[in-house]
Amino acid sequence: MDWLKTSIMHKRGVARGSVGTTHELTEDKQGTFHYTIGPYTEAVMTIKPGDRVIVQTRDAFNGKVKTPADLPSKVLQLPFANPQNGPILIEGAEKGDTVAVYIEKMAPRGENPRGTCAMIPQFGALSGTSLTALLAESLPEVVRKIDVDEDGVYWSPRVKLPYRPHIGTLSCSPEIDSINTLTPDAHGGNMDLPDMGPGSITYLPVRTAGARLFIGDAHACQGDGEVCGTAVEYPSTTTIHVDLIKGWTLAWPRLENESVVMAIGSARPLEDAARIAYKELVLWMEAEFGYERWDAYMMLSQCGKVRLGNFVDPKYTVGAGIEKKYLA
Amino acid sequence: MDWLKTSIMHKRGVARGSVGTTHELTEDKQGTFHYTIGPYTEAVMTIKPGDRVIVQTRDAFNGKVKTPADLPSKVLQLPFANPQNGPILIEGAEKGDTVAVYIEKMAPRGENPRGTCAMIPQFGALSGTSLTALLAESLPEVVRKIDVDEDGVYWSPRVKLPYRPHIGTLSCSPEIDSINTLTPDAHGGNMDLPDMGPGSITYLPVRTAGARLFIGDAHACQGDGEVCGTAVEYPSTTTIHVDLIKGWTLAWPRLENESVVMAIGSARPLEDAARIAYKELVLWMEAEFGYERWDAYMMLSQCGKVRLGNFVDPKYTVGAGIEKKYLA
Amino acid sequence: MDWLKTSIMHKRGVARGSVGTTHELTEDKQGTFHYTIGPYTEAVMTIKPGDRVIVQTRDAFNGKVKTPADLPSKVLQLPFANPQNGPILIEGAEKGDTVAVYIEKMAPRGENPRGTCAMIPQFGALSGTSLTALLAESLPEVVRKIDVDEDGVYWSPRVKLPYRPHIGTLSCSPEIDSINTLTPDAHGGNMDLPDMGPGSITYLPVRTAGARLFIGDAHACQGDGEVCGTAVEYPSTTTIHVDLIKGWTLAWPRLENESVVMAIGSARPLEDAARIAYKELVLWMEAEFGYERWDAYMMLSQCGKVRLGNFVDPKYTVGAGIEKKYLA
Amino acid sequence: MDWLKTSIMHKRGVARGSVGTTHELTEDKQGTFHYTIGPYTEAVMTIKPGDRVIVQTRDAFNGKVKTPADLPSKVLQLPFANPQNGPILIEGAEKGDTVAVYIEKMAPRGENPRGTCAMIPQFGALSGTSLTALLAESLPEVVRKIDVDEDGVYWSPRVKLPYRPHIGTLSCSPEIDSINTLTPDAHGGNMDLPDMGPGSITYLPVRTAGARLFIGDAHACQGDGEVCGTAVEYPSTTTIHVDLIKGWTLAWPRLENESVVMAIGSARPLEDAARIAYKELVLWMEAEFGYERWDAYMMLSQCGKVRLGNFVDPKYTVGAGIEKKYLA
Repeated sequence: MDWLKTSIMHKRGVARGSVGTTHELTEDKQGTFHYTIGPYTEAVMTIKPGDRVIVQTRDAFNGKVKTPADLPSKVLQLPFANPQNGPILIEGAEKGDTVAVYIEKMAPRGENPRGTCAMIPQFGALSGTSLTALLAESLPEVVRKIDVDEDGVYWSPRVKLPYRPHIGTLSCSPEIDSINTLTPDAHGGNMDLPDMGPGSITYLPVRTAGARLFIGDAHACQGDGEVCGTAVEYPSTTTIHVDLIKGWTLAWPRLENESVVMAIGSARPLEDAARIAYKELVLWMEAEFGYERWDAYMMLSQCGKVRLGNFVDPKYTVGAGIEKKYLA
Repeated sequence: MDWLKTSIMHKRGVARGSVGTTHELTEDKQGTFHYTIGPYTEAVMTIKPGDRVIVQTRDAFNGKVKTPADLPSKVLQLPFANPQNGPILIEGAEKGDTVAVYIEKMAPRGENPRGTCAMIPQFGALSGTSLTALLAESLPEVVRKIDVDEDGVYWSPRVKLPYRPHIGTLSCSPEIDSINTLTPDAHGGNMDLPDMGPGSITYLPVRTAGARLFIGDAHACQGDGEVCGTAVEYPSTTTIHVDLIKGWTLAWPRLENESVVMAIGSARPLEDAARIAYKELVLWMEAEFGYERWDAYMMLSQCGKVRLGNFVDPKYTVGAGIEKKYLA
Repeated sequence: MDWLKTSIMHKRGVARGSVGTTHELTEDKQGTFHYTIGPYTEAVMTIKPGDRVIVQTRDAFNGKVKTPADLPSKVLQLPFANPQNGPILIEGAEKGDTVAVYIEKMAPRGENPRGTCAMIPQFGALSGTSLTALLAESLPEVVRKIDVDEDGVYWSPRVKLPYRPHIGTLSCSPEIDSINTLTPDAHGGNMDLPDMGPGSITYLPVRTAGARLFIGDAHACQGDGEVCGTAVEYPSTTTIHVDLIKGWTLAWPRLENESVVMAIGSARPLEDAARIAYKELVLWMEAEFGYERWDAYMMLSQCGKVRLGNFVDPKYTVGAGIEKKYLA
Repeated sequence: MDWLKTSIMHKRGVARGSVGTTHELTEDKQGTFHYTIGPYTEAVMTIKPGDRVIVQTRDAFNGKVKTPADLPSKVLQLPFANPQNGPILIEGAEKGDTVAVYIEKMAPRGENPRGTCAMIPQFGALSGTSLTALLAESLPEVVRKIDVDEDGVYWSPRVKLPYRPHIGTLSCSPEIDSINTLTPDAHGGNMDLPDMGPGSITYLPVRTAGARLFIGDAHACQGDGEVCGTAVEYPSTTTIHVDLIKGWTLAWPRLENESVVMAIGSARPLEDAARIAYKELVLWMEAEFGYERWDAYMMLSQCGKVRLGNFVDPKYTVGAGIEKKYLA
């Protein structure tokens, strides 16, 4: 796409927009999938900035929910949910750099009904959870298997939803923590942000040598907040183009697409996630786009865009964005 | 607009879409503006369902911030901020009914620079406040006067923002509480939701005889969250068309426009506002649109839309919506 | 008690510890009880600083739960819960002053079982509520009638609890808001703080002429947090000694007893209530006890005492205190 | 102490109260201290249930703040704060068991002024933080060096505080996560609960083979909430007696002392920490002390005790307790 030429990735990345080798990260090659994101696991491959990787992701249920009778509480054993591909090492990446991940394409994999949505006991925004700990009975456990193709998500006889694929979980490794794949934080992780789909570039802070990129948790579509706790989870073939920006040090992940740049925060309570995102955006406008700090703050009060990722995971995710036309 | 014919207001309102008498609620006629929304003040006029009212609203600073030197901390005395027009009595309205307010038009009033934005000490999302009580120094107090017309908001030499007018504060009276006009709650009030502009219908629960409608706090534009604490506040001429829906009992306000219906919650922490909004939307889909409860809940997890009103007021406001095409 | 002579009330109050006229505020004299705390109701009596008032309070269920079969959801109609005596006018009280309320004694009234505890649908800390809005079924509605006398609270054949009476709701009127009696805020209100019993002095900010003192909601005992939503609610005869401190302007209520002074905050989320309380305490130590601000802050980090009022009401209440021996 | 004979540790532990070998875990023997608590590090020793360990803990600043001029922002590099001893393997411990840690004694180590308290930029309850992200200036960075001995904490010429030692950080390893030592969670970790001192028994869930016990972060005293962000941090010689309870599976840590049992939750917002703690306590009373669930819930509403650990760390900690006399 044309806008890419003016993206931060193309302007500041080591590869400057050129595409290098294409790697395949199949299920077989991945072998062991990961349930934590950290510095303690063996890398599955090493790539150069500019390389492309075609990743076969598994669904968040690790493929174990094949029929509506496969209740998550029976077939899954926490914390072994949301399997991740990776870690992928990026040559030259060091603490203090940023990895750029442009999502080129996301295609469904496997047989239909390949989509899965579930209400899981003690999970979801309108249920008591392990953290919002209540004595109320759990909501019923319900599994839904859904046909998905690139034309749509066949939710029910009544409703066909648009195919709006995105990656739920994406990140480099934290420096010393190893964080379960259900939790988003300053490294990225399980952000469940619907904007993180084909055509977007996510910028991820590098905190260990080689960056150690993890990716997984494809969604065929998702509403703001992922309110019941799960999206239309599905196995995907996701093609990413990866670059490295040396010396660009981020506290939290950021995202860019054709029209918007966005800072992303993950925390609880939800207002803290929004505070992080907006603060990062103000500081970004000040540092790189020529805005005086209070001008940026007051102007975002008039034109800032908020995107809610999830408010069901152990931490909640919010993106705060501004249209790029105001940054020119 | 054509879609209005199929709106809930036109289908279920007492006036069925017909427009009755047009009333003018000028500043003079209003006389005393109000700083609480409750059952204890004298009504300014009585209208019939279907009547139109042209309201001269004051800005949230009560017109006292005329230049950048008029610091809010000097010219305003809390709780006397955000003056409201009304209360307007609606004939036949009783506890358990709903008032529908269609906003036809919002025009700027007064001389330019008629818009005002301010950073106010101990107010705003990225500042300590009276509730998120900290020992840090306040951010600087900054006032910005801004030219506004129907072509745009002239933010700075660098940036012209689109004119996106909406009403920040709208509600009927609570049953026995009298709530200051800075706080949104189950009655509506200071929701600061950018969707509440021309072309929208807001449905407000009636809790006292005559409903007692209050309106004020026009914004020429506002970003999601109103992050610095204020929008481009301005005096407006706002034209509303009001109807009454008998026997439709709402726990929280709702909103409808051409493409979306939305339930609105206001609470702290922010996730509770989102929970209220989504719960109300699920129950609405179940009660009136033929959805089974868990189908609605799971489907909103795939296609729900979240709109952030403010997260700067004493309570935060979230709207949870669904496209009307899925409700047909 | 001897310590009273050194209390703030006795040192700074208009009456300087002397006791004036004793008034009786019986149920009959009260006539209409109140469900909001605000400036819009007629005063029930006027007293002078130093006067004593013997108040017959009703229980929070307004006496309607007489047997375990009287379910609150049937016999109560919200918002008509937690009836208050008052408002009592205090001569000479003006905005900016403080009213001191020393609780001399609280005796049970009425026939046994005079105590009531209930689990109420969509209420309580381990249940979904109107604000933490969930789709889970409500917990069962359970009513417990309990014998109470000054020797104890006869909870069950297995457990006798100590009689630890205190007032759940106490405040002067807000300036323009009228706040339902379930909600604590900067005026005081439904704080449900077990420390507010005989032997304590509560300092309440005055925001309207005459102060307009409200009191009610006696508890025979209560655990920290009032976790199920109700204490052992009972009708009481509560004797208070009231004084007025001119020109002492408080942002939030405070409390003093023999060994501790405490600042009280009410907000959501719960950390904001704690922030308010600790901030007020730091500023108090700086303003009146000769502490440098950061010394006070760091020292409270070593010896501050936190008392949890409720975390079940629409706002949560926290007291932050310090032993008086450190203030000498 | 006599009560120990009736403790859960003595009644259900493998060692039944007997004391086995005494091990010394000196600084030298420890060698490398740890900044995450997880399954990925090498054990420093293996003990049997019933063994005693004398641990030389470092202070939370890793001994680097020797004078008031050693500002934490200069001498510490996050996440390398709060060093931990361990992991200690306990023979026979398996996932699903519980480790009991009785703290026998805590003695100060090193030269005076051995205590350190600091206000650290963007840290503490009354400051913006990395999560409650604000644009306000940081509070000043202040370091305080304090003499500490077993007679007291010599805070200032004006104030001597009592020596109330306790362990701030204690836990077994999570199953797959490796969690930085600043964050408490379901494994325990940085709970900063003043009750966790000599005479207390902490019960920690075992999630990996050998349990992998970590300990550190001694405090000479601490107020409720640790409001400025740090306690009087000091190097200690802490003597613990460790036992293993087979087949007792806990979701969250618990604590017992002579008079109280307590369940501990860590989460944000603070009400969620309190919900976890109270829910765990209700379920415990039901499972092991013969209480019907709703009786336990309603009774805790009358006699539950809440203890605030910290509300400054990335997650907040609350203990909910009940006096043991009600459990007999």
